[in-house]
Amino acid sequence: MVHLVRLLQHRRTPPRPDHAEAAGGPVTWLDIPAGSPFGPDSLPLGVFRLGDEEPRVGAAIGDQVIDLAPVASAQMLDGSQLFARPSLNDFLALGRPAWRATREWLLDLVRNENDRDVVEPHLIPRSAVTMQLPFEVGDYVDFYASEHHATNLGRLFRPDSEPLLPNWKHLPVGYHGRAGTIVASGTDIVRPSGQRKPPDAAAPVFGPSQRLDVEVELGYVVGTPSTLGRPVPVEDFRDHVYGVVIVNDWSARDIQAWEYVPLGPFLGKSFATSISPWVVSLDALDAAAVPLPPQDPPVLPYLAGEHLPNYDITFEVLLNGHRVSSPQYQETYWSPAQMLAHLTVNGASIRTGDLYASGTISGPEPDQRGSFIELTWGGREPLVLDGKERTFLEDGDVLTITAWANTPTGRLGLGEVTGRIVPA
Amino acid sequence: MVHLVRLLQHRRTPPRPDHAEAAGGPVTWLDIPAGSPFGPDSLPLGVFRLGDEEPRVGAAIGDQVIDLAPVASAQMLDGSQLFARPSLNDFLALGRPAWRATREWLLDLVRNENDRDVVEPHLIPRSAVTMQLPFEVGDYVDFYASEHHATNLGRLFRPDSEPLLPNWKHLPVGYHGRAGTIVASGTDIVRPSGQRKPPDAAAPVFGPSQRLDVEVELGYVVGTPSTLGRPVPVEDFRDHVYGVVIVNDWSARDIQAWEYVPLGPFLGKSFATSISPWVVSLDALDAAAVPLPPQDPPVLPYLAGEHLPNYDITFEVLLNGHRVSSPQYQETYWSPAQMLAHLTVNGASIRTGDLYASGTISGPEPDQRGSFIELTWGGREPLVLDGKERTFLEDGDVLTITAWANTPTGRLGLGEVTGRIVPA
Repeated sequence: MVHLVRLLQHRRTPPRPDHAEAAGGPVTWLDIPAGSPFGPDSLPLGVFRLGDEEPRVGAAIGDQVIDLAPVASAQMLDGSQLFARPSLNDFLALGRPAWRATREWLLDLVRNENDRDVVEPHLIPRSAVTMQLPFEVGDYVDFYASEHHATNLGRLFRPDSEPLLPNWKHLPVGYHGRAGTIVASGTDIVRPSGQRKPPDAAAPVFGPSQRLDVEVELGYVVGTPSTLGRPVPVEDFRDHVYGVVIVNDWSARDIQAWEYVPLGPFLGKSFATSISPWVVSLDALDAAAVPLPPQDPPVLPYLAGEHLPNYDITFEVLLNGHRVSSPQYQETYWSPAQMLAHLTVNGASIRTGDLYASGTISGPEPDQRGSFIELTWGGREPLVLDGKERTFLEDGDVLTITAWANTPTGRLGLGEVTGRIVPA
Repeated sequence: MVHLVRLLQHRRTPPRPDHAEAAGGPVTWLDIPAGSPFGPDSLPLGVFRLGDEEPRVGAAIGDQVIDLAPVASAQMLDGSQLFARPSLNDFLALGRPAWRATREWLLDLVRNENDRDVVEPHLIPRSAVTMQLPFEVGDYVDFYASEHHATNLGRLFRPDSEPLLPNWKHLPVGYHGRAGTIVASGTDIVRPSGQRKPPDAAAPVFGPSQRLDVEVELGYVVGTPSTLGRPVPVEDFRDHVYGVVIVNDWSARDIQAWEYVPLGPFLGKSFATSISPWVVSLDALDAAAVPLPPQDPPVLPYLAGEHLPNYDITFEVLLNGHRVSSPQYQETYWSPAQMLAHLTVNGASIRTGDLYASGTISGPEPDQRGSFIELTWGGREPLVLDGKERTFLEDGDVLTITAWANTPTGRLGLGEVTGRIVPA
């Protein structure tokens, strides 16, 4: 592990400053199709399977995957075996110096014509591989960090009360989700069954959910662990978090509404959560950094910080290919550094592979809402698609979420997460 | 893996019926001190560390640990390497035939004088070993299955409403806890800090919890996994669950009260959950089986079943050596088979090492309550110990929970879980 860092760091002196590539526009010897999410600045990592071969780590560029283990091996990097594994966890555990060194190495590979001979034999078309879950998930925490989403849900679930609860602007509200049912993009989603209580019924009934929904979220992937009993301050965010994925936190609203008081969402969420296959590093995402929106009232000192991270990211929600919404991440109230500081302030430790997500991202405009319960206002205001009224998800629906980070020099893709609804 | 089962099954024909040993009273060639929780019927498994040696699997009997890997190896069992590992997970994944075969083998070892020569060299005093976390935890779910506890908490947290919420008797209410902060018995518990809002304050304050509490629970350990999208019916409980541990779900009531609406407990619980080191198999616990208390109203069909499992278990809560409470598990409203059926009815899958716990066990009597918030009625009715008034946990306190299963022929111990509070 140490060798990977050391060798990579010795390849170039001094190391290239972050994002120097954005200034003059990147160049690469690879052909990158117009509109590809994965240009030469992105270089996200994922785990791919090619035919019957063992799953292993690749980097995406354009329409191709760089098979990293043989390339690293050909260049005699000691850490090359890390890329031959079926998850990113061992790489994620290395920490920030190794993450940066790896990014430098990848940037060199795709820029330097000299590296073409060693890389080209290990390029595989993305269409030829099946993407796997990129990492083994430790704990999964879901936050509730979008003010518009929390306000909308408050109005829908608790119509007789103040929509935003008294704690909401003092702490990033969150809860633990089910880590064992986080699935790779493309996994079919079986419509969940469960208890729901129709408003006019005396007792609950059992059956397939009638209000199956999505939640558009950004997920943060933890690399290096922390120690039990020691909080992670906001300024240590980048030492622990490697990067981001797109999260679709599928939700059964009717199951959730009946079960969630007083201990929170459980079966309404735990049947499946899909994540995008390519993990985009914070170092790549830095090009899309923007200031955090103002917070009022002021937060307690453990949540305060200068330059709290936030990112300008545009999501798109596609139902059977039709765009139904474009949530904007940059309006999210809480910074991911605050989420991590809050999550650990009681001494809770984090592990490699932990995932924490923003919660549904919704903007002020109706077409910026990140769930169908909001888009159709509880199912009462259907959308019209292809001349047909639509509220919640139907069997056979394919739901895809894409995301693009907006940078001063262009866009940087996060890829997509997709899933098809199959009958209960 | 298969070999372990096959070889063990061929050691005796026909296999001994379960619990034949209870009828005539067990015999063993080992000396078992009077009052030991681990008689010759119990034979719980755990992971121990002896000095600098690698942690590995042992069985407890009396004051001793049987070091299983060398014993299995000496008897030329193919599966012996399973016991040389630092967690029970690979053993747990084998499934019920292997679990039963292993129990038969262990019963033989401690009964047959013939086995004395092979076992005796591998007996280690329990006082000489340090017990580890017995398994790697997948997902952790905490239920809320005791009616008295739910009623008490309802009265304390929501004094102006009906204490038992409308869903409580229709489904086992539960939520996901933090798996990564489940710790071995004996681990010091750092007092958590966090936000709390005093009733008369305009805004929350930050600091160490002033209402640190315990929750006395029984935890069920999942052995064999299930498939995503396929519920586990109540009758398959014993195919998936290997056994039980004692759980102390430490709770910071002031943090919990401020944060928990609407998404449930989070930092008020996630700082630590302690479990007992010895996993007692359901096959051993069967001797303490009792009928489930009546359920009214009738449950939905997916929760219904004949002979739903329940166990007669007496817990004791010791604060600095003083007994403060004796919760009785057998009064718990929901069966563990119902909890598992509910947890998976939406298609959520389970994994080897998943832990689900009963929630706080409280009985109808004041001295049967399983938490200090109940024992002291929100801190308003202190206990008197050693002439001193006590409400919540103080720095330096040592809290120990023991449990004994009551069988027709005596008691069978589950051991204990303990922890000391250290300052924030």
